[in-house]
Amino acid sequence: MYELVCELFPICRSITGAGFRQSLKILDEAMGGGILKIHSIASGSKVFDWEVPAEWEINNAYIITPNGEKICDFKQNNLHVLNYSTGIDTELDLASLQEHLYSIEEMPDAIPYVTSYYKRRWGFCIKHEDRVKLKEGKYKVFIDAKHYENGVLNYADLLIPSTQETKDEILISTYLCHPSMANNELSGPVVATFLAKWLLELKERKYNYRFVFVPETIGSIVYLSKHLKYLQKHIKAGFVLSCIGDDNAYSLIHTPSENTLADKVALHTLKDKNNFKEFSFLDRGSDERQYCSPLVNLPVVCVCRTRFGDYKEYHTSKDDLNFISEEGLQGGLKAMQEIIMNLEVNEIYQNTVFCEPNLGKRDLYIDHCKREGRVENILSFLAYCDGKNDVLDIASKLSIQAYELKDLIEKLKFHKLIQSKNIYKGIQ
Amino acid sequence: MYELVCELFPICRSITGAGFRQSLKILDEAMGGGILKIHSIASGSKVFDWEVPAEWEINNAYIITPNGEKICDFKQNNLHVLNYSTGIDTELDLASLQEHLYSIEEMPDAIPYVTSYYKRRWGFCIKHEDRVKLKEGKYKVFIDAKHYENGVLNYADLLIPSTQETKDEILISTYLCHPSMANNELSGPVVATFLAKWLLELKERKYNYRFVFVPETIGSIVYLSKHLKYLQKHIKAGFVLSCIGDDNAYSLIHTPSENTLADKVALHTLKDKNNFKEFSFLDRGSDERQYCSPLVNLPVVCVCRTRFGDYKEYHTSKDDLNFISEEGLQGGLKAMQEIIMNLEVNEIYQNTVFCEPNLGKRDLYIDHCKREGRVENILSFLAYCDGKNDVLDIASKLSIQAYELKDLIEKLKFHKLIQSKNIYKGIQ
Amino acid sequence: MYELVCELFPICRSITGAGFRQSLKILDEAMGGGILKIHSIASGSKVFDWEVPAEWEINNAYIITPNGEKICDFKQNNLHVLNYSTGIDTELDLASLQEHLYSIEEMPDAIPYVTSYYKRRWGFCIKHEDRVKLKEGKYKVFIDAKHYENGVLNYADLLIPSTQETKDEILISTYLCHPSMANNELSGPVVATFLAKWLLELKERKYNYRFVFVPETIGSIVYLSKHLKYLQKHIKAGFVLSCIGDDNAYSLIHTPSENTLADKVALHTLKDKNNFKEFSFLDRGSDERQYCSPLVNLPVVCVCRTRFGDYKEYHTSKDDLNFISEEGLQGGLKAMQEIIMNLEVNEIYQNTVFCEPNLGKRDLYIDHCKREGRVENILSFLAYCDGKNDVLDIASKLSIQAYELKDLIEKLKFHKLIQSKNIYKGIQ
Repeated sequence: MYELVCELFPICRSITGAGFRQSLKILDEAMGGGILKIHSIASGSKVFDWEVPAEWEINNAYIITPNGEKICDFKQNNLHVLNYSTGIDTELDLASLQEHLYSIEEMPDAIPYVTSYYKRRWGFCIKHEDRVKLKEGKYKVFIDAKHYENGVLNYADLLIPSTQETKDEILISTYLCHPSMANNELSGPVVATFLAKWLLELKERKYNYRFVFVPETIGSIVYLSKHLKYLQKHIKAGFVLSCIGDDNAYSLIHTPSENTLADKVALHTLKDKNNFKEFSFLDRGSDERQYCSPLVNLPVVCVCRTRFGDYKEYHTSKDDLNFISEEGLQGGLKAMQEIIMNLEVNEIYQNTVFCEPNLGKRDLYIDHCKREGRVENILSFLAYCDGKNDVLDIASKLSIQAYELKDLIEKLKFHKLIQSKNIYKGIQ
Repeated sequence: MYELVCELFPICRSITGAGFRQSLKILDEAMGGGILKIHSIASGSKVFDWEVPAEWEINNAYIITPNGEKICDFKQNNLHVLNYSTGIDTELDLASLQEHLYSIEEMPDAIPYVTSYYKRRWGFCIKHEDRVKLKEGKYKVFIDAKHYENGVLNYADLLIPSTQETKDEILISTYLCHPSMANNELSGPVVATFLAKWLLELKERKYNYRFVFVPETIGSIVYLSKHLKYLQKHIKAGFVLSCIGDDNAYSLIHTPSENTLADKVALHTLKDKNNFKEFSFLDRGSDERQYCSPLVNLPVVCVCRTRFGDYKEYHTSKDDLNFISEEGLQGGLKAMQEIIMNLEVNEIYQNTVFCEPNLGKRDLYIDHCKREGRVENILSFLAYCDGKNDVLDIASKLSIQAYELKDLIEKLKFHKLIQSKNIYKGIQ
Repeated sequence: MYELVCELFPICRSITGAGFRQSLKILDEAMGGGILKIHSIASGSKVFDWEVPAEWEINNAYIITPNGEKICDFKQNNLHVLNYSTGIDTELDLASLQEHLYSIEEMPDAIPYVTSYYKRRWGFCIKHEDRVKLKEGKYKVFIDAKHYENGVLNYADLLIPSTQETKDEILISTYLCHPSMANNELSGPVVATFLAKWLLELKERKYNYRFVFVPETIGSIVYLSKHLKYLQKHIKAGFVLSCIGDDNAYSLIHTPSENTLADKVALHTLKDKNNFKEFSFLDRGSDERQYCSPLVNLPVVCVCRTRFGDYKEYHTSKDDLNFISEEGLQGGLKAMQEIIMNLEVNEIYQNTVFCEPNLGKRDLYIDHCKREGRVENILSFLAYCDGKNDVLDIASKLSIQAYELKDLIEKLKFHKLIQSKNIYKGIQ
């Protein structure tokens, strides 16, 4: 995964334009090619309360100082140009230039990441330590950028079908509009890509899996405007992936109600991980803002390693290839795989016999991972199979991951000691 | 307010009689005159399980010691006479006198406040340090008091109308039957009086406000016997004011269920105040006992500074003009004003657009009182406007007072980004 | 009670056979004789998922060592023989013998209690300190035991009728299949016996009381197979008694839902006892496993002093007559009596008058056990008598045992100030 991040890192992405399209193609190739469906919507289209912005083209940008030095060179680091900047080619004095410069006094050696999608202006982002050295004089500024009102905005999706007859879906959504930064955001799309590859190889999938790759905010708004009714009907749980490649924490941002299946399975899976942090929807920041907005109201949480805004490198040139690691990305991928395994095993079961069954005569009287001197898991699982608790509930009581109960459940189903509540027309 | 307390302080009040009527008139004048409606009910009237007691008249009372000294002089301090005492004019020896004396051994320099409303007897209240000095000999006791079986019990109310079309009411109830004590109880009626003045000057009132000034217990029982059905239908929240003039704590006594609008708004308003104390209905003590009794079941909490019984000066001559202060009274008044502002702003709203609205195009993209790095309040407010949370719920999540959201709500309503759920016949 | 335990202690019980029958008869005599109904079910009968095992007869068992010493003598301690062992009469060398010996390395001076009900084998239980001294050579082993396939399994019950017209029942269940051990299990049947004696002498019983004495697990399964529908309809709360004769703790094992009347009354009664321990159903271990199994779903908790498995003497010869005491048994009996008194007094009441009643005119204005300066219990009780709280709820608020409110409730009923909600067709 780290290699794929490295390949994507240098590209100058924005919410529209060639960089975004190129990045989608690289992800598609990583999945095997011809997997992702890439869509476009015309600039100027109305989407709910918004309008799709013009397509942005950027080729070059730099500043020539009074003594002829080239600084803020887009070709050195594309963060130097204000993302979605208008083009410019002029000379001006230092005071006028200052109005177009962005830097962070507290992090003097970092180039900040600044955007201006909905107010057209031009600008450069610069390390504060370089900015303070700028001398009086005439500066030449050059940005070779254009906005095409007849352009498009791109996004992609992928539906991995269930192996059963169902329209129930799990949503995985991530965004790809940030230029050269690693944790936020290349970690999200890259983990999503490898998660899709893993899912494609599974022999059985209870759910359909919908992967969505969009530019942040406007992209998820576009996607929702196209598919709202269908998603509201079929999405059972969803996950926004962001900042999921560092090796520090595991973070969960809840839905507003905190009680959807997505909240439940993510909390069950992550709560015992090292340095787990639980956030309310007040601390949201990515596309869960759209998915969970009141009239949309989808069951979508956000899963991160270190949450956006909880690390100081966030939205600067310091969020670079050193900030993330293969281990960090693998940890993020594993967490999502566990969430999915827990969803796949989850179901409501009910006992089929009165009283405890006779395990001995079925050769089941083995202690399945006995813990802390408590009664055996197999009997405890049956004790709570009351047609109301689901497997997540019971696993939480037993302090294990739901997917760890998979073999036990298969054995009990084989011996017809439990029946899925869905098809249970029963005794009580 | 402190001046008004001083004016009322010397009057000898009881549950019936001239002192109570005179006090009501002083409060009415403080409101501007002709504001309060003063009512009377005949002694002997049946009210639920009770009977209205006879009217009490008291003119003078004292004891002459064997050596001719006048002690327990009513004209020095009206607490000296047992409140509601029968008249007496006789001579007796010390042993017989002792049976009619009340003092507090643990507070030797305080005159206790003692009443005997439902058993006719005479008596004097005396500092314990004076009592122990009494010598053997003949004592002359004189109490010029009468009970009129054909008298009346008085109480007053005031309805400040809503500026909207509604019968919904907020109840403010306080009692005025205690003689010369300051926190319990002149603080309650005086804060209520100034709260009424403030409400009368507001340009807009969503609710009708009903103020009730009664003698404690029997007065609220009388009031409920007259208006029960109407109050049960229209009171949305109510507040008993008592012991609200000292400068030590803020206290809330909950209803039995602890989940009415009154509990919710009072807790929201007071919980972050200095030295806030929360009590269950087990710790009740004033007219909330009647308002919250099971068959009455009104949503009425009691709001105090230091709760009755939580300060040792309670029900003694030490609860005097030094125990309270203008600052203490102002703190009590402000707490009640905040409670009312929070009630006035409270409502259930719902978003009108899908996804987050485009704030930029409406020039709303300003950080309204940003806090602790969380997403801006305007977006957070919208995120929780789901047609279920009310403004109190959302403000509690944002850790601010509901009334602080007033401007923001007005802006969102102006831009039609939210609609009141009451009139919302909508999309979902 | 201790004497009765001593009488029962030497008998070799098992899940079937003469020892069990003899023990039932001793309990019946302790109740007065002819009280318990003793039932039998044929070996081989199908009961739910199980089959009733053959009847076991044991007369003698021992080992003769190579030097002629008799060890593991059944007549010295019946724990020496594997419970439900097959018969044997042979000679073998030490290595072969070892395969049939059971001991506890960590408790070298204790004979373990081992059973083998569902796999036919023979064996001896021995102190580990004796086992390690065994020398090479020929051992003679002798067990005079038989299994009768045409035998029976016995159990007993007793229904103590309510003095009112009701079919509502309280279940007390205990088991009697363990041989010479004291806390587990003679404490359970002996406390149940004395509890039945106490109940038989009460003048009034609101409920019917059903006592069940069974061999553990298979016995309760048999009982449920006979009476399931009736028990599901009429049992309002039930209690399994086990390990209830030591003097260390009080323990409650909840039902899976933790919110039945049995959970509520047991928690209310026991929670303030010295060294109280609360367990979830995960820590179950006795017949509550059957009573609370999902399709049976009876409201039955388990009440212990020190829970099975929480003391190291459990299931060894160290759980002897020294481990329990008359005080321990009395504590267990008293806890169960309090639970029953709390059930008997429990009911939902509602006030009959609006506002607080006038207690003075009924001479009720006495402070019934005033506590911590709170308003008097009589008024507090009335304040919460809202037709929703039951007496257990109110007593918990007042921090007293429900049965302590009995006199107060009788007085209020006498004065018609409260009415039972069951018969209340009332004002609201």
